[in-house]
Amino acid sequence: MRSSQRQADQLRSIRLTRQYTCHAEGSVLVEFGNTKVICTASVEEKVPPFLKGKGEGWVTAEYGMLPRSTGSRMKRESAAGKQSGRTQEIQRLIGRSLRAVVDLKALGERQITIDCDVIQADGGTRTASITGAFVALTDAVNNLIASGKLNASPIREAVAAVSVGIVGETALLDLDYIEDSNCETDMNVVMTAAGKFIEIQGTAEGEAFSRSEMNSLLDLAEKGIAQLIELQKQSLTQ
Amino acid sequence: MRSSQRQADQLRSIRLTRQYTCHAEGSVLVEFGNTKVICTASVEEKVPPFLKGKGEGWVTAEYGMLPRSTGSRMKRESAAGKQSGRTQEIQRLIGRSLRAVVDLKALGERQITIDCDVIQADGGTRTASITGAFVALTDAVNNLIASGKLNASPIREAVAAVSVGIVGETALLDLDYIEDSNCETDMNVVMTAAGKFIEIQGTAEGEAFSRSEMNSLLDLAEKGIAQLIELQKQSLTQ
Amino acid sequence: MRSSQRQADQLRSIRLTRQYTCHAEGSVLVEFGNTKVICTASVEEKVPPFLKGKGEGWVTAEYGMLPRSTGSRMKRESAAGKQSGRTQEIQRLIGRSLRAVVDLKALGERQITIDCDVIQADGGTRTASITGAFVALTDAVNNLIASGKLNASPIREAVAAVSVGIVGETALLDLDYIEDSNCETDMNVVMTAAGKFIEIQGTAEGEAFSRSEMNSLLDLAEKGIAQLIELQKQSLTQ
Amino acid sequence: MRSSQRQADQLRSIRLTRQYTCHAEGSVLVEFGNTKVICTASVEEKVPPFLKGKGEGWVTAEYGMLPRSTGSRMKRESAAGKQSGRTQEIQRLIGRSLRAVVDLKALGERQITIDCDVIQADGGTRTASITGAFVALTDAVNNLIASGKLNASPIREAVAAVSVGIVGETALLDLDYIEDSNCETDMNVVMTAAGKFIEIQGTAEGEAFSRSEMNSLLDLAEKGIAQLIELQKQSLTQ
Amino acid sequence: MRSSQRQADQLRSIRLTRQYTCHAEGSVLVEFGNTKVICTASVEEKVPPFLKGKGEGWVTAEYGMLPRSTGSRMKRESAAGKQSGRTQEIQRLIGRSLRAVVDLKALGERQITIDCDVIQADGGTRTASITGAFVALTDAVNNLIASGKLNASPIREAVAAVSVGIVGETALLDLDYIEDSNCETDMNVVMTAAGKFIEIQGTAEGEAFSRSEMNSLLDLAEKGIAQLIELQKQSLTQ
Amino acid sequence: MRSSQRQADQLRSIRLTRQYTCHAEGSVLVEFGNTKVICTASVEEKVPPFLKGKGEGWVTAEYGMLPRSTGSRMKRESAAGKQSGRTQEIQRLIGRSLRAVVDLKALGERQITIDCDVIQADGGTRTASITGAFVALTDAVNNLIASGKLNASPIREAVAAVSVGIVGETALLDLDYIEDSNCETDMNVVMTAAGKFIEIQGTAEGEAFSRSEMNSLLDLAEKGIAQLIELQKQSLTQ
Repeated sequence: MRSSQRQADQLRSIRLTRQYTCHAEGSVLVEFGNTKVICTASVEEKVPPFLKGKGEGWVTAEYGMLPRSTGSRMKRESAAGKQSGRTQEIQRLIGRSLRAVVDLKALGERQITIDCDVIQADGGTRTASITGAFVALTDAVNNLIASGKLNASPIREAVAAVSVGIVGETALLDLDYIEDSNCETDMNVVMTAAGKFIEIQGTAEGEAFSRSEMNSLLDLAEKGIAQLIELQKQSLTQ
Repeated sequence: MRSSQRQADQLRSIRLTRQYTCHAEGSVLVEFGNTKVICTASVEEKVPPFLKGKGEGWVTAEYGMLPRSTGSRMKRESAAGKQSGRTQEIQRLIGRSLRAVVDLKALGERQITIDCDVIQADGGTRTASITGAFVALTDAVNNLIASGKLNASPIREAVAAVSVGIVGETALLDLDYIEDSNCETDMNVVMTAAGKFIEIQGTAEGEAFSRSEMNSLLDLAEKGIAQLIELQKQSLTQ
Repeated sequence: MRSSQRQADQLRSIRLTRQYTCHAEGSVLVEFGNTKVICTASVEEKVPPFLKGKGEGWVTAEYGMLPRSTGSRMKRESAAGKQSGRTQEIQRLIGRSLRAVVDLKALGERQITIDCDVIQADGGTRTASITGAFVALTDAVNNLIASGKLNASPIREAVAAVSVGIVGETALLDLDYIEDSNCETDMNVVMTAAGKFIEIQGTAEGEAFSRSEMNSLLDLAEKGIAQLIELQKQSLTQ
Repeated sequence: MRSSQRQADQLRSIRLTRQYTCHAEGSVLVEFGNTKVICTASVEEKVPPFLKGKGEGWVTAEYGMLPRSTGSRMKRESAAGKQSGRTQEIQRLIGRSLRAVVDLKALGERQITIDCDVIQADGGTRTASITGAFVALTDAVNNLIASGKLNASPIREAVAAVSVGIVGETALLDLDYIEDSNCETDMNVVMTAAGKFIEIQGTAEGEAFSRSEMNSLLDLAEKGIAQLIELQKQSLTQ
Repeated sequence: MRSSQRQADQLRSIRLTRQYTCHAEGSVLVEFGNTKVICTASVEEKVPPFLKGKGEGWVTAEYGMLPRSTGSRMKRESAAGKQSGRTQEIQRLIGRSLRAVVDLKALGERQITIDCDVIQADGGTRTASITGAFVALTDAVNNLIASGKLNASPIREAVAAVSVGIVGETALLDLDYIEDSNCETDMNVVMTAAGKFIEIQGTAEGEAFSRSEMNSLLDLAEKGIAQLIELQKQSLTQ
Repeated sequence: MRSSQRQADQLRSIRLTRQYTCHAEGSVLVEFGNTKVICTASVEEKVPPFLKGKGEGWVTAEYGMLPRSTGSRMKRESAAGKQSGRTQEIQRLIGRSLRAVVDLKALGERQITIDCDVIQADGGTRTASITGAFVALTDAVNNLIASGKLNASPIREAVAAVSVGIVGETALLDLDYIEDSNCETDMNVVMTAAGKFIEIQGTAEGEAFSRSEMNSLLDLAEKGIAQLIELQKQSLTQ
C-alpha cells in the first residue's frame, strides 16, 4: 500500500474543471491529486511564419510553474531571462502530443496555443498537463465550430498521459512527488483513445531497467490512460 | 449606475481565500470581482547580498500574468526573455508597499518573497495584489512566530490598495477593465490601517486633472481602502 | 535654511541650454543645480507597428545615466544586458508626460523620440528630464513647421515637473540628492501650464504621510512648476 | 533494400577515432555513416555548486552543431543568444546516459564535461554522440588513473545508443536523415553492455504506434547496440 | 584644402576640459573638432576575479555613444540588450592602450575604469577617447597620490591616438566623419610620448594599400600624436 | 632556432583540405601546424535588409571555437548567451578581409556566409581562418558559376593572412600559442596576391614597438603571405 493509500495500479483522484477562467476559448483546471495545472487554449487567426500560405494550422504549447508551486521557491523564469531546458522539453512534448491527434490541414490557417501553468506541483505535472490540455483544446475547437469558423472537428481522437515508475521493485501508476523522487525508473506515456502510443519516454534514474520491467510499466500505463480518457469524455459531456 | 450595477463608490465583490495552495508559508487567492490573483509568501533564511550581516530582513515581490489571463493572449515573459517595464513597475510597487509596514530589523536576517500571479485579469491587478499580498505576508509571519523563529510580529499595521478614476466626469472606485480603458484619470492608492498614504500614483490618461478632482479621488480611495482593511482583518481571523 | 542655502520653497538654479549638440532636431542641456541632463529630440518619419496606417504619430522617451554620473560608479546597462526597472519606470513616465500635451493625430504619422541622458546626477533627474525634454520636443516640432512638414504645432501646452518631499517635518521643493536620501516622503509632480496634473507619484520612504502633508507638497509643487514653465518659455523665445 | 544499400537491421559504417584533437583528456571523432561528431572529455578538479563538499563527482554534456553541418545553414546559437530547446534536450539526454554508468562517488569531487560537436549531420547525431562520448569519457578516466588521481575506474559498464524507426511499415535500424524525415515513428534507445535500458524515447511523427511495433523496434535496437558496444570495446583496446 | 579648411597634416581644433563633471576621480571633456567625448576615471579598491591576491591592479575602459550623438538616431544599446561588436572592439582598444603605459604592479590592487561616452560624433571617436582618457586617468592617479594611497605615479609615459587615412590619393590627418566615409584606407594609431607604437590598426575600406602609402600615413600620425601629447601636457599643468 | 625547430622566417606546416564536409558549397579544413579550422561557405539567395533591392551581394563571416579546442576548456558561447568581444572582433576582421577582394555588385543579390570553426587551437586562428576562408569562398563562387548563376567570378584576387611578432628581440613569422603568449608585439597582417595590405593590426603586448621593428615585421609578413597565396593556388587547382 502506497503512502497515499493507493493500490499500485490506482490513479490519484483526478478532476477536470472546465471554464476555469473566463477569457480563453478553452480553460481547464486539471488536478491529479495535489498536482494542479491551469490549461488554457487560445485561438489566433494566424500561423507561424514557416506555415504561412500553406493552408495548414498549428497547435503548440507553453509550460510554466508558478515560483512557489513547489516545496521550495524556484526562481521565476521571466526574471532569470530564459526558460530552463526542462521547461522547454516539457512544452515541446505537450505540443507534439496534441498535434499527433489533430488534422492540421482540417484546422485551417489558424493557431491554437495551449498554456499549461502549474499552480501546485506534486509530481506528474507534464502528464496532467497533456491530459488537461486535450480538454481545453477540444473546447476551443468546439468554439470554432459553434461560431461557424469550422464545419467539423479536426481532432481525430482523444489523447491522455500518465507517469509510471518502478519504486523499490514495484511498478506504480501515476507517481506523486515523493514516489517520483525515489523511483529507479520513471516513464511518461502518452496514448490515444485507440490504445496506441504517441510518446514513450523512459529514464533509468537509478538502476537500468530490463525489457520485462518495461513491459510491466506499459501494462500499467495502458490501464491508467484508458481511465483518463474516460474521465475526459465525461468532463466534455457535462 | 455602472455597467456592473455598482454605485460609484462601491467596491467589486472582494474575496480572500487563505491556504489556497499547499506549499507556501502564506498562500492567498484574492478576487476583486473577476480579477483573480494568487499571492504566495515564501520565507528564506537568507537575505540579498546588500543586507548580509546587517541584522535586517527583506520583503520583496514578484508579479506575473498568465499569458491568457487577459482577453487576448499575451506573450509569455519567460519566452520573451525579459520582464516588461510594466511588470517591473508593478512588482517594485508591491514590494515598497509591503516594506512600508514591516519593521525589517524586527524581521531578522531572512527574506520573505511575495509572488503575485494573475490568473484572471479584469482591471486593478496591482491593487488586488497588494491587498492579497498583505494577507499572505501575515500568514507567513504568523508561521514564523508559531515555529518559534520570531517572538513578535514585525508587521506594524495593515496595508491595502485600490484604484480610483474619473470616467466621463464621475469619480469611480475600484475600476474594472472596461472602466479603466475609458477613464480620463487613473489613480492607484496604497494606504495603511491608520489612514495614511504609502503610495499615490495618479496618471492623466486623457485630460489633465485638477486639484479638486484629485481630492474627490482620494476621498473615494480612503473609503474603499478602509473597507478592504476590514475584509483583510475578517479573513485573518477565520 | 537648507544646506544649499535655499528656502524650503526655492528651486535650485535652473538652466536650459538649447542647441547643445548639433545633430538632433532638438537638443537641450537642462540643469537643476548640479543635476545635468542632455535631452535630444529625434524625428523619424515612421511610427511603431501598433500605429501603422492609423494616421497618428507617437512621442516616446528613453532614459539613461552615464556610469559615473553618480557618486559611485554604476554598472553600464548595455554591458549588463538590460535596463533596470528604475530606468524603465522613468522613461515610461517621461513618455506619458509628453504625450499628454501633444495632439498625436495632429503630429501625423511620425515619431519623436526624446533621449534623456544624465551626465551628472544630484537628485531630481526625472523631473529635470521632463522639463528639458519639453523644450527639446518643442524645438523638434518647430523644425517640422519650419521645413513645411507641419502647418501648426500639435503641442497643446507646456509641461514641466518637479520633486517635492518631506524632510524631518518640513516640506521642501526640488530635492537634491542628500535631501532625497533623507526624506520621509518623496513626490514627483508633473503639471501643465494650465496648472493641471498629468502625473503625481508620491511614495512614503519612511513614515506614511497624511492627507494634509500631501496637500502641503502639492502647494509647493504647483508653485515650483509655474516657475519652471516660465523658464521654459523664456528659453524658447531666446 | 534501403537507399543506402543496407539491410533493415544493418548499422551504417561506424568509425571511432580516438585522440582526434590534442588538448582534451579524451577526444573521439565518431562517425555513423555521414554523421560525424567530435566528442571531447574535459576533466576539471571542481564540481558544480550543488555538489560542493559532498565527496561526489559530476558528469555532464554539452551539444552543438556547426552552422553548416546541415543541408541548409542553421543560425549559430551563440549569435542567436541562446541554445534551442532541441539542443538542451539532447545535451540533457547525453549527460543522463553517461551518469547512469558512472559511480559518481567513486569519481571523487571532480567534473568531466563531454562536448559533442556535430561537424556533419546525416541523422542520428544524438545516438552517435552518446556512443562516441562513452569512449571519450573512458579515455579521460583512464588518464586520471594513469596520473594517479584515481585508483580504479568509476565506470560500471559501457553504454551506447542507436535510433530505430518505422518507415512505411518496416522497422529500420540506425536511420539516416532521409529515413528519419520520412518515418512514422522514431525511437532513440540507450542501453548498457548488460542489455538493460537507460533511456527509451519513442515519438509518433505520423501514425501512433502499437505495442507490437514498439517491440519490433526494441528488438532491432538491442541488436544494434550490442554491435556498437563491441565496436567501442575494440576501439578502446587499440 | 579640406572642406574644413585644414591642411592635410593639420589636426582639428583640440580641447581638453578637466573636471568636466563633479563625481569622478578624473573627468575630461575631449573635443576633436565636433567630436565630443566625456571621459571619466573611476577608482575602485578591488580588482577583477582573475587578479585577486596577485598584488596587481587593473585599468579597463567602457565606451558608449548617446543615441543621438550621430546624424541619425542609433538604437540605445541597453535597450537592444547588448553592446555591438564595434563598441566592444573600441573599448578593448582603449583599455589595452592605457594599460600599455601603466605599471599595474605599482598601481596596487585597485581598478581604474575609464568610461568614454560620446555626446557628439564627427569621426575619430576612438582616438579622441584614448587621448582624453589618458588625461582622466592621470587625474585619478594624482588623486590617489594626493590622498596618500600611492607614493608615486604608476604611469610610465603619456599615450595619445589619432586617425589617418587616404582620401582620393592624399594622406590626411585626423579625419572627420565625411572624410572617414570617403576614405580608401583608414588607420588608427596609438603612440607613446617616446614615439613608439602601442597599436596600429589599418583597414582598406576601398582599395588595398601599399607599403609606401602606409609609411606616409604613419609619418602623419607621428606628427599629429606628438602635438596631442603636447596638448595633454599643457592641459595637465593648468 | 624556435622550439618547433623552425627558422624565424618559416611558416608552420600548412595544409588546405577542400571538400572537408559534404553539405556546404565550399568546405575547407585549414591547418597551420596544430591550429585546425573548418571553414565553410554557405550561399543564400537573399541579402541582409540594408542591401535589399540594391543589386549588390554580401560576404560575411562568423567565428567560433569548440569549447575544448584549447588547453583548458572554455565556456561554450551559446550557453553563455553571447559571443565574446574577441569573437566578434575576429569575425568582423574575417568578413572585411574577404569583402575587400570581392566585387559585391558582380556577386549579385546573394549572400555568402563563411563559418570559421576552430576545432584545435595553437595560435593564429584568425589568420588561418582568413587563409582557409578564401579557399572556401572560391569554391562556393565556382559552384555558382558551374550552376549558371554567375557568368564570371566576382573575386578580384586572392587574400591570405599571417601573424608576426617580436619575441625577445627577434621578429618571428607565424607564431604558435607559446610564442604568442610570450611576445612583446603581435601583428596580424592581411594581404592580397598583389602584395598590398587589407588589414594591419599591431599591438604592443609588452614594450611599445618602434618604426623599425614594425618594418621588420612587415617584411616577414609579406614573405609568409606570398607563400600562403601560392599554397591556396595549388590547393584550388588540385
